[in-house]
Parts: sequence; structure tokens; C-alpha cells
Amino acid sequence: MGDIIMRAVGYVRNRVCDKKDAAWGGDLSTIILENEYHTGLKGLENFSHALVIFYLDQAKYERETHLQRRPRDRDDMPMVGIFSQRTKDRPNNIGVTAVQIVSADDATLTVKGLDAIDGTPVLDIKPYYPVFDKKDAHVPEWVDRLMEHYF
Amino acid sequence: MGDIIMRAVGYVRNRVCDKKDAAWGGDLSTIILENEYHTGLKGLENFSHALVIFYLDQAKYERETHLQRRPRDRDDMPMVGIFSQRTKDRPNNIGVTAVQIVSADDATLTVKGLDAIDGTPVLDIKPYYPVFDKKDAHVPEWVDRLMEHYF
Repeated sequence: MGDIIMRAVGYVRNRVCDKKDAAWGGDLSTIILENEYHTGLKGLENFSHALVIFYLDQAKYERETHLQRRPRDRDDMPMVGIFSQRTKDRPNNIGVTAVQIVSADDATLTVKGLDAIDGTPVLDIKPYYPVFDKKDAHVPEWVDRLMEHYF
Repeated sequence: MGDIIMRAVGYVRNRVCDKKDAAWGGDLSTIILENEYHTGLKGLENFSHALVIFYLDQAKYERETHLQRRPRDRDDMPMVGIFSQRTKDRPNNIGVTAVQIVSADDATLTVKGLDAIDGTPVLDIKPYYPVFDKKDAHVPEWVDRLMEHYF
């Protein structure tokens, strides 16, 4: 199929103005929904966590640089494909993060641990279902080194 | 911002031709990457799980019907907002599922437990990082009833 067209359902508001690679865990973010989606959060306050799917509008994927790279260009990381790492510069520039819900009302969702900067467009919000999302997963050892201090 | 334009990075191939609401767990699916993304899976074979982000191209969100509804239109489910349920008819029609990796090579990824029908366009593949994705989450009791027999 050809182009797939999407629109933001809301925007991230927080105090993070620059991209960063560490210490996202304490940050509170509020997602402010566009008018046509007001009331679409009804019931979310009964969940502890949500998945936020967002559009990394400051990122730019370039095949030569990003199809394979060392995560964060660190010499101590292996050369891996774009689909084997979570870097932001990727085809379609989609971010997905599971966040803790702090509060939800008709038009706004406040969460903790969202690794997106102020102004980021949000594409979707889903309740976190352990049956979908929680896995006893194994990762290679470099991931533990890479993600130290991230949250 | 205005329209956000994406393209499929690959397509799902499996034996599931019709939408269904149960028993996805045993299904094997292969994701065949478009040529320009070949080698982008390098290193994924060292992970046990991946997140597949896909475009539900058969779904259609209609505000009147879907902004709030009872999941699967079941009388025993509460009326909840679109962002408080995982139904496929949603703004931007994005699906996200954590799947078990069976095998990966340069151009194809074979997984177990992907709830997408044959031909579904894939928008992104990410390695499953427990630090991002695995949460000790609480859900309301209706979710457990809804998801019985899903996988």
C-alpha cells in the first residue's frame, strides 16, 4: 500500500525541552487531547499503566546512518539493525513507552516516565494489558549497560 | 501539526484471513520486510521478544460509534473511552503487540502471538526491553473477563 496518513490525537506537555538519553523516570508529562477526542479517556483512571504511542517529530531517519548503527554511537555497543534497537531515528519515527498513570480526566492524561519532549504529537493511547504487554523477556547483555540510568 | 505520513516497512504473512477475538496465541506469523529495510533486523535473534507496531488497515474509526463503547459490544462490559480499551477501530488504527521471536534473518521475522491478519502492513519493529515495556500493572476486573481465551 502507499502512504498511510495519521493525525495527532493530542500533544505532550512537560518541562523537557531537549532530547536526552538519561533520567526520564521522574518526569511528569501531561497529554492534552484534541477537542474531538475529549471523553475518550473515560475509564482509564482504573488502570495503573498505559502505552503511549507518539510521533518523534524531531527525529530523522537516514538509511546510510541508521539502518545499522551502534546504539548511541558508543564504541562498546555492537553494530545492530534499526529494528534491534530503540533509537528515535527510525522508519516512521514511532515511539512506544509504557507509563504510569498519575491522573486522567476528560481532556488530559498525566503520566510519569514518558520519554518524549515538550510538544511531541501523540498518535494513540492504550491501556496497559499485562496479557498483551508484560513478557518474561530475555535481552542481550549490552541492553542492560545501555539502559543504565535511563529512567 | 497537520498530516503525518508513514509507509509500511513490511507486511504480515500468516494463515489468519478473518478478524477474530480469540485464540491468537498459537498462530505463527512471518513479517516480510520491504527491500530497503533488509539487514535492519541484525541482532534481533538475541532477543526473546519484540514489539510489533502495525496498521489496522481493515479497521475504521467512527467517532459516534467508537469514541466510547462497551468492549466487543458486550452487555457485561462497561462503557469506556477509546483510549481505555484495545479495540482495533481507533484513531490512527495503530496496533501494538509484544510477540515471541521464533527466528529472524536479513529479510524476515517469524513470531508467535501476533494478533494481525494476513497482509497487515507493519509500521515498526522494536526489541522488547523490560525496562521500557514490562510493568507490574493493575487492570480493572473486566479486562480479565474480556481477554479470557484471547491468546
